[in-house]
Amino acid sequence: MEWKIVGIIAAICTTSGFIPQIIRGIRTKRLDDISPVMYMLLIVGLSCWLSYGIHIEDMIIIVANAAGLAFSIFIIILRFKYIRQR
Amino acid sequence: MEWKIVGIIAAICTTSGFIPQIIRGIRTKRLDDISPVMYMLLIVGLSCWLSYGIHIEDMIIIVANAAGLAFSIFIIILRFKYIRQR
Repeated sequence: MEWKIVGIIAAICTTSGFIPQIIRGIRTKRLDDISPVMYMLLIVGLSCWLSYGIHIEDMIIIVANAAGLAFSIFIIILRFKYIRQR
Repeated sequence: MEWKIVGIIAAICTTSGFIPQIIRGIRTKRLDDISPVMYMLLIVGLSCWLSYGIHIEDMIIIVANAAGLAFSIFIIILRFKYIRQR
């Protein structure tokens, strides 16, 4: 049971980590230093985790990776939006 | 068995994603737009995943998260190094 809590903390931290990045990007209107290749790889990887979560019917894996996937796509869209606006 | 492959692809993508970010940072000597809060959260989260992997003795989880942890710490050190050098 305590290991389930470790897993939940891990999932919350690694998923919510995208939120300060989004806030920073919106505030500064700059995401130039972020690697688009990193986020492309994350999108592929998180999609795999999500399908794996659906397969094993694990709600923590599904929710964490669906949110992480949405955040990653949003960050990459924001990055190109801000670059094009300059 | 095929789901194990999905897990391995997921682990490779989400972990190796840090590498293009490190390369970009070293090349441009700028990581200003990266959120340090994001990487702090990642460090906590990946540490939890790593201890969970050690607990369940899963080599994929151990290796992927140990590497991700090392990369995250390196990115955050690089960020502050480049900011201080200016």
